[in-house]
Amino acid sequence: MNAEIISVGTELLLGNIVNTDARDLALTLSELGINVFWQTVVGDNRERLTAALGVAAKRADLIITTGGLGPTCDDLTKQTVCAAFGIEMYYDQKAEEDLRAYFRVGKGGQMTENNLQQCWLPVGCTPFYNTCGTAPGCGFTTPEGKSVLILPGPPKEMNAMMAHGGVDFLRTLSDEHILSHNIMTFGMGESRIEDMLRDEMNALQNPTLAPYAKEGEVRLRVTAKAASASQAEAMMAPVIADVKRALGDIVYGIDTPSLEDTVLHLLLERGATFAAAESCTGGLIAKRITDIPGSSAVFRGGVTVYTNDVKLLLGVKPETLEAHSAVSREVAAELAECVRTKLGADYGLGITGVAGPDSDGLHAVGTVFVGLSTARETYVRALNLGERTDRSRVRTLSANHAFDMLRRSILGLPVA
Amino acid sequence: MNAEIISVGTELLLGNIVNTDARDLALTLSELGINVFWQTVVGDNRERLTAALGVAAKRADLIITTGGLGPTCDDLTKQTVCAAFGIEMYYDQKAEEDLRAYFRVGKGGQMTENNLQQCWLPVGCTPFYNTCGTAPGCGFTTPEGKSVLILPGPPKEMNAMMAHGGVDFLRTLSDEHILSHNIMTFGMGESRIEDMLRDEMNALQNPTLAPYAKEGEVRLRVTAKAASASQAEAMMAPVIADVKRALGDIVYGIDTPSLEDTVLHLLLERGATFAAAESCTGGLIAKRITDIPGSSAVFRGGVTVYTNDVKLLLGVKPETLEAHSAVSREVAAELAECVRTKLGADYGLGITGVAGPDSDGLHAVGTVFVGLSTARETYVRALNLGERTDRSRVRTLSANHAFDMLRRSILGLPVA
Repeated sequence: MNAEIISVGTELLLGNIVNTDARDLALTLSELGINVFWQTVVGDNRERLTAALGVAAKRADLIITTGGLGPTCDDLTKQTVCAAFGIEMYYDQKAEEDLRAYFRVGKGGQMTENNLQQCWLPVGCTPFYNTCGTAPGCGFTTPEGKSVLILPGPPKEMNAMMAHGGVDFLRTLSDEHILSHNIMTFGMGESRIEDMLRDEMNALQNPTLAPYAKEGEVRLRVTAKAASASQAEAMMAPVIADVKRALGDIVYGIDTPSLEDTVLHLLLERGATFAAAESCTGGLIAKRITDIPGSSAVFRGGVTVYTNDVKLLLGVKPETLEAHSAVSREVAAELAECVRTKLGADYGLGITGVAGPDSDGLHAVGTVFVGLSTARETYVRALNLGERTDRSRVRTLSANHAFDMLRRSILGLPVA
Repeated sequence: MNAEIISVGTELLLGNIVNTDARDLALTLSELGINVFWQTVVGDNRERLTAALGVAAKRADLIITTGGLGPTCDDLTKQTVCAAFGIEMYYDQKAEEDLRAYFRVGKGGQMTENNLQQCWLPVGCTPFYNTCGTAPGCGFTTPEGKSVLILPGPPKEMNAMMAHGGVDFLRTLSDEHILSHNIMTFGMGESRIEDMLRDEMNALQNPTLAPYAKEGEVRLRVTAKAASASQAEAMMAPVIADVKRALGDIVYGIDTPSLEDTVLHLLLERGATFAAAESCTGGLIAKRITDIPGSSAVFRGGVTVYTNDVKLLLGVKPETLEAHSAVSREVAAELAECVRTKLGADYGLGITGVAGPDSDGLHAVGTVFVGLSTARETYVRALNLGERTDRSRVRTLSANHAFDMLRRSILGLPVA
C-alpha cells in the first residue's frame, strides 16, 4: 500500500508555517509499513484541491488530507473530498454534542453557528472525534477502493487524532510491515563512507541501505519490508552488524537522536558530569546539551569566554595567551582544565578557534582547537574546517567534535 | 506567474526531516510576487520524479526543485530534470575548479571521484555556484517556455544559492517590480496587532500589509508592486510610517534580521558591552549573539549557571537561593548583577526559570524571571509562558525577552 499526503492550507504555500504535519504523518506511516511516495501541498481552493485529489487517486492507494476542517468559509476540505469521490454527507449528532460541550467548558459558552458546519461527515465513514479541538476527522473507503483519512491541520489536533482513530483505521488496511533504522556516525565524510559501502548498498534490495549527510554527520538508513515487524527486524540485523563492523567506532548509535544525547546517556549511566568553556562556539555546546530535558544531571554549567579577560578570569594563564595566542592548542587545553576544576566536573571541554567570517590575523577561518580534560589527561584535537565553511558550520562542527571527544573518552576509545 | 516547488528526498517522505526548504522558498517567492499554488514532495526515485515534473509542467510556469544534487548514486535530480525536458548536459569546468578548491582547502585534499558527477549541468543554463557546499545549482528555460530552478537540499546551501543566483534569475523573468519590507515587532500578540490594524489591512490593495508570527514575534510584511523599484518604495513608505505610529516602541526595526542583531548594533554604536548568566536558557543567549559575526565587540561572555554551585561561584548569595529558591525574581537580579560586575560589562542579563517538561516542584513550567542590571539599576521581568508551551519555546521566548529588555534599556524605554 502506498500513500499520498495532501496538506491543505494557503499559509503553507505562503511560507508562513512549516509543514510539520507531513513530517509527523510520514513518520507514523513508515512505522506502520505504509510507503509514502508523494506529498502535495495545495491552498484553500476548491478547484486545485479537486485536481490534487484526482492526481492522488491515480497514483496512491491511501490519501490523507490535513487541514481545512474548521468553521470558516475557506475550510472546504470535507465537501471537496466528498464531491471528488461522489460521496454524500450526513450530519453527525455526536459531533454536535462534542462541539457544544467544548464551547460550554472551554470558551465561556459562546458558539457561533458557523461552527456546526464541522459536524457534516461522509456517509459510511468512521468518525474520529476531536479530543483537543473542534473539527472531527474521519476515515473511509471510496467506491473505487481507495482509502481516505481526513485530519485537522493544527499539529496538536492532527497528532492526537492520528494516534487514536487514524492508526486504528490504518491497521485494518495493511498486513505489510516496513521498518527503518538509522545508523548514526561521526568522523568520516559521506562520499568516503559511500566508497566503502558501495558494493553492499548496490547489492541490497530488501533491506535497502542509504546514506544521508546532516550537519557534519553521516547517517545510514536501513529499511526492510516484511510480513511482520519481527521479520523486518531480523532482515535488518545482519546489515546493521556489517555496517558497524565496516565503520567501527565512528558509529555512535542506532536511532539515537544526536551526539549530545548519546553523551548525556553515557554520562548518566556513570553518574559523571561535564562542563564547557567555549570561545568560538559561544555557548552552542551549552545550548545543545540543555536542549535535552534532564541535562542538569550531567551538565555542571558552561562559560562563554568570548574575550581574553574572561579567559583569564576562568584561570587561563596570561603567559599562555601571550606566548601562543588565544587560538592555540595550549589555550584549548587550559580552558578545558580550568572549567573542569572550577566548575567541579569530571570532564572539561575547552574550545577556541576562528569561526569567521574574518580571520584573527594569525589563523585561517576554520582553525579550531578542541580540548578535553579529565582527572588523568588532557587531549586537544586541532581542526581545519576550511575557509569556505561558514560561521555557523564552523561552530556546529566544532561542537560536534567536542561531543565526539567526550563520547570517545568516556568509552575509552582514542580521543584526539 | 505561478510556481510549483518539487522537493526531492526520501528522507522527507520518511519523516526524518521537516521541509523547511519549501517554507523558505515560499516566503522568498511571495516577496517576489510569485504565487506558489503547489508543493510536491517525491523520493529519490527517477520514475516518480519524472512523473512529478510532468504534472508540474502542466500546471505551473515556474518549477523549482530542491535536493538530489549530491555526489551519491541516489542523487539524480539534474539528470532526471534534463531527461524530462529533453535537455542535454555539459561538464562545467568552473564547477570542477570550485570543487577541487573546496576539498583542497577544507578537507585535507581528499576528494573521491564520485564528487565530479556534480559538475554536470543543463546546456544553456545559468549556473549557480555553491558558496557553502559542493553541488552547484542552476536556472534555465525549457523549450516549452517553462522556467526551472534546480537548487540543493541542505537548507543553508539552498538559502544562500536562492539569495544570490536564484533571485537574480527570477527577476529577469518579469519586468514588474515587487518589493517587500518586514516591520519587526516584539511584545504584542498577533491577534491584538491584527485587531489594531484590521481596517488598514483590509483597505490596502497595493501595497498590501500582512502579519505573520514567528518564534514569539510578530512581523508585518508590506509588499508593493510597481513599474520600478523606487516607485514601489514610495508606495510603501507611508504604510510603514502609519504602522510605526500605531504600534510605537514595540517596533524594533525594519528588515532587521533579529532582536539580537538590533541589540548588537545599538551596543556597537555606543561602545557598550553586555554579559549573560543563563540558567533555563542554558547558553541560548550566548549562542544567539555569537551567531552574529563581530559580536565579540559587544559580548564580554556568558556563564551557563546550570547548577546552584555554579550560581554560587558566580557570586549569587547562598541566603538568596535559600530564601527565594533558584527560580525567583531575586536570583534573576543577582545573576544579572554578578555577571555584569564579574565580567566587566555595561549590562548584565540573568535568566532563571522552568523550561520543562518537568516542573521544579515549586513553579509551573514556563515560569521565568529575566533580570537586567546596569550600573544604575536592576530590573526583573516575570514571565508566565504557559503550561502548554514546550521546552524549546520557553527557552526561545525567554531569550527574546532578555534581548528586548536590553534594547529597551539602551534606548531609555520602560524596561520591566
